[in-house]
Amino acid sequence: MAGVVVRNIERAPLETIDALGRAGVATVHEAQGRTGLLASYMRPIYAGARIAGSAVTISAPPGDNWMVHVAIEQLQAGDIIVLAPTSPCEDGYFGDLLATSAIARGCRGLVIDAGVRDVRDLTQMGFPVWSKAVFAQGTVKATLGSVNVPIVCANALINPGDVIVADDDGVCVVERARADEVLEKAQAREAAEEDKRRRLAAGELGLDIYGMRPKLEAMGLKYV
Amino acid sequence: MAGVVVRNIERAPLETIDALGRAGVATVHEAQGRTGLLASYMRPIYAGARIAGSAVTISAPPGDNWMVHVAIEQLQAGDIIVLAPTSPCEDGYFGDLLATSAIARGCRGLVIDAGVRDVRDLTQMGFPVWSKAVFAQGTVKATLGSVNVPIVCANALINPGDVIVADDDGVCVVERARADEVLEKAQAREAAEEDKRRRLAAGELGLDIYGMRPKLEAMGLKYV
Amino acid sequence: MAGVVVRNIERAPLETIDALGRAGVATVHEAQGRTGLLASYMRPIYAGARIAGSAVTISAPPGDNWMVHVAIEQLQAGDIIVLAPTSPCEDGYFGDLLATSAIARGCRGLVIDAGVRDVRDLTQMGFPVWSKAVFAQGTVKATLGSVNVPIVCANALINPGDVIVADDDGVCVVERARADEVLEKAQAREAAEEDKRRRLAAGELGLDIYGMRPKLEAMGLKYV
Amino acid sequence: MAGVVVRNIERAPLETIDALGRAGVATVHEAQGRTGLLASYMRPIYAGARIAGSAVTISAPPGDNWMVHVAIEQLQAGDIIVLAPTSPCEDGYFGDLLATSAIARGCRGLVIDAGVRDVRDLTQMGFPVWSKAVFAQGTVKATLGSVNVPIVCANALINPGDVIVADDDGVCVVERARADEVLEKAQAREAAEEDKRRRLAAGELGLDIYGMRPKLEAMGLKYV
Amino acid sequence: MAGVVVRNIERAPLETIDALGRAGVATVHEAQGRTGLLASYMRPIYAGARIAGSAVTISAPPGDNWMVHVAIEQLQAGDIIVLAPTSPCEDGYFGDLLATSAIARGCRGLVIDAGVRDVRDLTQMGFPVWSKAVFAQGTVKATLGSVNVPIVCANALINPGDVIVADDDGVCVVERARADEVLEKAQAREAAEEDKRRRLAAGELGLDIYGMRPKLEAMGLKYV
Amino acid sequence: MAGVVVRNIERAPLETIDALGRAGVATVHEAQGRTGLLASYMRPIYAGARIAGSAVTISAPPGDNWMVHVAIEQLQAGDIIVLAPTSPCEDGYFGDLLATSAIARGCRGLVIDAGVRDVRDLTQMGFPVWSKAVFAQGTVKATLGSVNVPIVCANALINPGDVIVADDDGVCVVERARADEVLEKAQAREAAEEDKRRRLAAGELGLDIYGMRPKLEAMGLKYV
Repeated sequence: MAGVVVRNIERAPLETIDALGRAGVATVHEAQGRTGLLASYMRPIYAGARIAGSAVTISAPPGDNWMVHVAIEQLQAGDIIVLAPTSPCEDGYFGDLLATSAIARGCRGLVIDAGVRDVRDLTQMGFPVWSKAVFAQGTVKATLGSVNVPIVCANALINPGDVIVADDDGVCVVERARADEVLEKAQAREAAEEDKRRRLAAGELGLDIYGMRPKLEAMGLKYV
Repeated sequence: MAGVVVRNIERAPLETIDALGRAGVATVHEAQGRTGLLASYMRPIYAGARIAGSAVTISAPPGDNWMVHVAIEQLQAGDIIVLAPTSPCEDGYFGDLLATSAIARGCRGLVIDAGVRDVRDLTQMGFPVWSKAVFAQGTVKATLGSVNVPIVCANALINPGDVIVADDDGVCVVERARADEVLEKAQAREAAEEDKRRRLAAGELGLDIYGMRPKLEAMGLKYV
Repeated sequence: MAGVVVRNIERAPLETIDALGRAGVATVHEAQGRTGLLASYMRPIYAGARIAGSAVTISAPPGDNWMVHVAIEQLQAGDIIVLAPTSPCEDGYFGDLLATSAIARGCRGLVIDAGVRDVRDLTQMGFPVWSKAVFAQGTVKATLGSVNVPIVCANALINPGDVIVADDDGVCVVERARADEVLEKAQAREAAEEDKRRRLAAGELGLDIYGMRPKLEAMGLKYV
Repeated sequence: MAGVVVRNIERAPLETIDALGRAGVATVHEAQGRTGLLASYMRPIYAGARIAGSAVTISAPPGDNWMVHVAIEQLQAGDIIVLAPTSPCEDGYFGDLLATSAIARGCRGLVIDAGVRDVRDLTQMGFPVWSKAVFAQGTVKATLGSVNVPIVCANALINPGDVIVADDDGVCVVERARADEVLEKAQAREAAEEDKRRRLAAGELGLDIYGMRPKLEAMGLKYV
Repeated sequence: MAGVVVRNIERAPLETIDALGRAGVATVHEAQGRTGLLASYMRPIYAGARIAGSAVTISAPPGDNWMVHVAIEQLQAGDIIVLAPTSPCEDGYFGDLLATSAIARGCRGLVIDAGVRDVRDLTQMGFPVWSKAVFAQGTVKATLGSVNVPIVCANALINPGDVIVADDDGVCVVERARADEVLEKAQAREAAEEDKRRRLAAGELGLDIYGMRPKLEAMGLKYV
Repeated sequence: MAGVVVRNIERAPLETIDALGRAGVATVHEAQGRTGLLASYMRPIYAGARIAGSAVTISAPPGDNWMVHVAIEQLQAGDIIVLAPTSPCEDGYFGDLLATSAIARGCRGLVIDAGVRDVRDLTQMGFPVWSKAVFAQGTVKATLGSVNVPIVCANALINPGDVIVADDDGVCVVERARADEVLEKAQAREAAEEDKRRRLAAGELGLDIYGMRPKLEAMGLKYV
């Protein structure tokens, strides 16, 4: 099954991708029916980064980063590398040299269900990474994996070309074909929230804004 | 057992609470006999926050944040929301809308043995949270829990109205009735530490300041 | 086996130590054949610190920090305290008072396979710590351990006087006797990387720079 | 706070305790409103044991089992020792000698949020243990803890004299004062389940037995 | 996205399924190119069970087992229930009553990325379960999920009708359409292993049987 | 550093080894001053096994079991294979074919800080394994490691030829040169325990046998 590089993948329009990025992980995840989140152990190496991009996926053997080099050739501006090892691994598949190369091709960041290293350099370069671990452990280049095949990364299914949204809340994947529909719902959600935010800031209660009191009473909630 | 909201809880005086907050988690925990710490997995969403307040407690079903809305109505200025799910859960019970509402009622922060989301917004709003996870996973509003009942949160017993102290070291609970006594001990401890800090900074050794050498020798410590 | 303090340990030259620190954890680890890393759960209490120093080791009972006081007397300028509990423990063995004392003796930081507290103060003092946990839990002074004996810390063997390198990527140990040899290899590695970094930044691919294409083809990699 | 042994604790009647044991953990937990479970990491050292008894509680320092000896003197026939360390610890506080002593006093088992050792012997002796870890690590006898004080064990509050029910599903605590009421509900629940079990075994569906179809349809469940 | 039950799913032939079950998890996983394994935390509730069957999948909200009742109606003889919660959860979704119902419909077992309870009863009934946890924690019936939709379970993608193979080594999924091809490879692999097993038992070395010595020497392995 | 096989290692006498095995992990660990235990996550694949043997050590790359074949040639009757991966890994390095080969050379078992598979077969063959995980994940044979070099395995330092003792309590390592001394202490300990066991079984209390009462009183223990 390993040993395949898919060259031509479809991507969502950059305008859609960028707008999903502005909406952010929590909103996008809600907009698509509370689906698409990667596991909560996927944490950013520095606070404040918010990106969205098209997934270039890598299925890599444990402790072997050969396929990262292969994947970089497939990158286009606006892409995000998404790597899942074929078995659990914390090794540092990626560091500042690979980031230099990825940036040269317009890559926006890395999502990796394994380790990353040179995080001080990556932070200074402004190259954001969401990873399972920060670990300097080096890797070999001895066994084939695949590029741009469907992967399961941190318990989420990701197809090449899917839209990845990542910020301080974590990482969310949006199916490419649903990107426009999800964006529309995300924007509707944001608009609706704006009004609620204003009312809540003014001291109104969610209990009243959302009309929860009758239902809570019907369910039997007792105030004592 | 679920389905109860206790409206009138007693709180410690704000002066006591604020002074406990200035003493900080490590000192308060020592002052009350090395008790009251929540588990070390409870981490702040941003560095540098130090708060103290009265616990408004929530016992919530997994993946259901309905009771947070109910609890917000019970908040007074100086309160901290403390949420424990009835079974382990990492879902994001709380985000920027709920924070907006809580801040409007004078809430000082959130301690949650589960997940939180919108952490970038919460950071910008200066609303501190100590949580088990950062996770965008949304929740439902379908099942009752309780507000202001005793809870076990991150392996510590917390009664409504207890004083919560939280900083970069974690979270500590002080029984309401013991708050003044603990504060007194904490302040005594701080005063005693000041002198030691000065002597240690000047190069004196703890071995000498604390008179440890004879006891170490008696226990059989050998220098080779 | 416990109850021993070794007073005279050999250390590597400070020039070597400092140069290893500048090379950083990832490079040093590669330079010595991908060995010497401590487990990835050893994380810094604040970002950006980079240190190197000679290990003064502590083997301490769980929840007992008596030996830290004993070890501080053994510190020289340029040393790093490295503590391993004799069984897994997260307690806060070390806080701002001990840091004050350690700094007075020229100590550069702490590596501890357990907990640390007062991290806000330690951050303000600029005293870096790599630890398994941040936990305010206090310790006792009741049982002997040892100072400057070989320890296994976070799954790595560390002898007193070994060189410790620590930065945002984690912690690496270099055997004292190999320090110069490892430094030489690390510097050669850095020099070689500089040229590659420039070429990668200019858009050349690792596939070409490292001549990987023929080998990948021979292994059967297929582009589709 | 440490250093106290409470000698006279109240216990529930043995008939109630034994009946709760026969009902088992899952049923008892449901009968008291889905409360009282200890964390799922508390696992039995061998399969098939089912016990119930009165809690004799121990709050013990990490890595120090002195208080177990103290607690054994307080045991009566039908008791279960419940130990929580004051900070997380996996050490083996308890082995075959202590079990021999506990059995001599009629003790029915051990629930320990830490480690246990000699599990082969304990299994042969038929002395059941639910623990966080199996770990041979020895402990010291240097610091005081307390016996028969309220403890939080594996995220559950346990008061001395509470009823502990433990089987292959884990461990549940029942407040002493509620023991009879919980037993009654547990037995009602068991009776009700018997009929359902028979109908389900005969091929009837829960969807029909519980009348779920209309509500599922109202909620919008679609069959395709 | 939730709220859908797919009624007619395709299944692989029972002969193929049964033969895959006899081959076992390790062999099947190798036969399909080292893919398809669920995470190693999925453990059987008792040793010795070996099953294979067609996946009837459930996507369930955390702490809500309503959809299990819905799924049971969709079971055919030879099926295995595979449940993934929509966010991480350890609750006991399944116990002896549901097992009674599932067995009545010919179900062969349960694979659940969450908790299970009544394990003593399930063991006596011979109903095998692979789960993330054993936990008595009860669930509610308040929110819709889906049945027979694609799910990611313990980091593996599972489509309804895929073949599940489970034994003491864990759980493996085989795409329905590839079942025959994988079986063929698995059987070829077993045949090849038989001869090797005999030779290894007779004292021949893998180094010789697999002709590894020249390659090891070429790689630079040194005997000292 | 990798790529070395040390052929001639010294071993302790088999009589010493066998006697240490009879003493068991808990006793041996105590006899050598509470040192030498591997981490508690190292669990046996089946209950009841008790072995001791000489360590033949393997340092293996993650996901690569080539060196196991190399190590098997170095086995003598009475040896135990001890494998540590160079970075954390759960893959199944070892299964029934390798066990067949190891048994043919008199190997007594495997201790592996990674995964094992075919555990049903290994159990039936009576080949005991202590591992971090049971995981069917296959490995490659592409990169060199080393055999019979010092390793850190599950946080313990193990030199080739050291004595490994393993039973239901876990795994302990005894330095080869100290084996006789440790055995002597272990046997003295066992003899002393026999008398205590008899007295405890007869109802005497540890408080009295060990004369603890005066010291507890001096420390301030209060009975209330």
